[in-house]
Amino acid sequence: MTDLRSSLAAQGPVDLTTIATDATPQFDGTKRDARRLLPEIGKRLMASQELLFANGRAGTTDRKVLMLLQGMDTSGKGGTLRHVAGLVDPQGLVITAFKAPTEEERSHDFLWRVERRLPPAGMIGVFDRSHYEDVLIGRVRSLADSDEIERRYDAINDFEQRFVDGGGVLLKCFLHISPDDQKERLAERLDDPTKYWKYNPGDLDERELWDEYQRAYEVVLERCSTPSAPWYVVPAGRKWYRNWAIATMLGETLDELDLKWPEADFDVEEQKRRLATM
Amino acid sequence: MTDLRSSLAAQGPVDLTTIATDATPQFDGTKRDARRLLPEIGKRLMASQELLFANGRAGTTDRKVLMLLQGMDTSGKGGTLRHVAGLVDPQGLVITAFKAPTEEERSHDFLWRVERRLPPAGMIGVFDRSHYEDVLIGRVRSLADSDEIERRYDAINDFEQRFVDGGGVLLKCFLHISPDDQKERLAERLDDPTKYWKYNPGDLDERELWDEYQRAYEVVLERCSTPSAPWYVVPAGRKWYRNWAIATMLGETLDELDLKWPEADFDVEEQKRRLATM
Repeated sequence: MTDLRSSLAAQGPVDLTTIATDATPQFDGTKRDARRLLPEIGKRLMASQELLFANGRAGTTDRKVLMLLQGMDTSGKGGTLRHVAGLVDPQGLVITAFKAPTEEERSHDFLWRVERRLPPAGMIGVFDRSHYEDVLIGRVRSLADSDEIERRYDAINDFEQRFVDGGGVLLKCFLHISPDDQKERLAERLDDPTKYWKYNPGDLDERELWDEYQRAYEVVLERCSTPSAPWYVVPAGRKWYRNWAIATMLGETLDELDLKWPEADFDVEEQKRRLATM
Repeated sequence: MTDLRSSLAAQGPVDLTTIATDATPQFDGTKRDARRLLPEIGKRLMASQELLFANGRAGTTDRKVLMLLQGMDTSGKGGTLRHVAGLVDPQGLVITAFKAPTEEERSHDFLWRVERRLPPAGMIGVFDRSHYEDVLIGRVRSLADSDEIERRYDAINDFEQRFVDGGGVLLKCFLHISPDDQKERLAERLDDPTKYWKYNPGDLDERELWDEYQRAYEVVLERCSTPSAPWYVVPAGRKWYRNWAIATMLGETLDELDLKWPEADFDVEEQKRRLATM
């Protein structure tokens, strides 16, 4: 079977209305099957990640992985962090949740705060939202003029290319849900007092701009899906598929790094002899 | 049953040679039992942690938890991170591994770099090594004169008290192993090329100073185990017990925070009505 990333990669112009949010590409099984598979995938992820981490510690690699999550409210960024990022060793993970920029951040170029949060060699970084907000909400809410928005698409591509040239691999996931998926999930939050904290009245203001956001995502998926750093459209109407798919793609990404265990930079036999006397 | 923390808390002068590293206080079961229990404990941890995280997001708490891991090389700090910290939602976790201080860090008071890494409200912080290195290797290797070392014990107690006064809870775990435990684990690393990266010839230099380090730990356990921030001596000769014990104590710590779900700061019914029309 071809790898899942090739199935989900955005190529050329994208019309999101033609992609079903409850589709389950490359998975034929039930919810229960997907959930049962996750710990197995987790074990393999943990093993591949250890190899990356070991090389990072030993200073024998420049490789690093950045998983970037974008999607409308309730699309499952938090759930993906919990259920997928939660599968790997937290020592090797750096998570950044990007909020509205602070005053200091706004006084710099939009990529300044992002650059600082790129994972170092040996690590897996996860972005919960990202620099793409600057061409999403930035565009929909006209937070910058259109020339500036135009400039940013290329700036993002250059920035990501530089990350890749330095040994980075990007896994950019758009969690694709429908307005009905969102309506159901927002209603759940409003029906359950243990979920009120996840709800923000502003979410409905954004929801009113659904079509504008979808259009902004389509532009991103077309202009910023490059051979070095493709975007993946992950149907996220079914949470179990979303988790399975992202975990699977993360595994593909790690395995492709094709690393070896770092060699000893000391004389193993000499160390054994010394230890034996102690 | 009394809580595990009371069983493991250091009180008064400690003689580490009298505490068996293969003891399993409050656990009567097998290795297999302990391993089987861990995912169950994990589910409960996740739930308690979500309550803390929710309150942090909502701005309705000043509570935060800091788990601090200290121990000789091979005592299992990394394993604890992987198997215990790995049980909770990585979104709510901030891990810091303290290495030898940088030049900038050395130009400040020893607590400067630590202060910056304290978890904010709603989060669980984990320190892999900590400010205690400054009175452990600091003392054993005479990196500071004895007056300065003396000053640091009190400075640490004041610093930790301030953290507690600000809503923090500390879980300071000393992972207790014997010289034989360490010998076995170092030998394993030297016998397995996939573990060479964990091995450092300097580890044997530290091992030569075993007794001095134990003495330095005993002083710490006596002088810096306060009612607000006790030290726990965790027998760590059996990895499965160590994981069970620390996960259990983390659960006790979280449950004691006794938080409630944040109330809605919006009109729930009004939001439901608005959503229904969209």
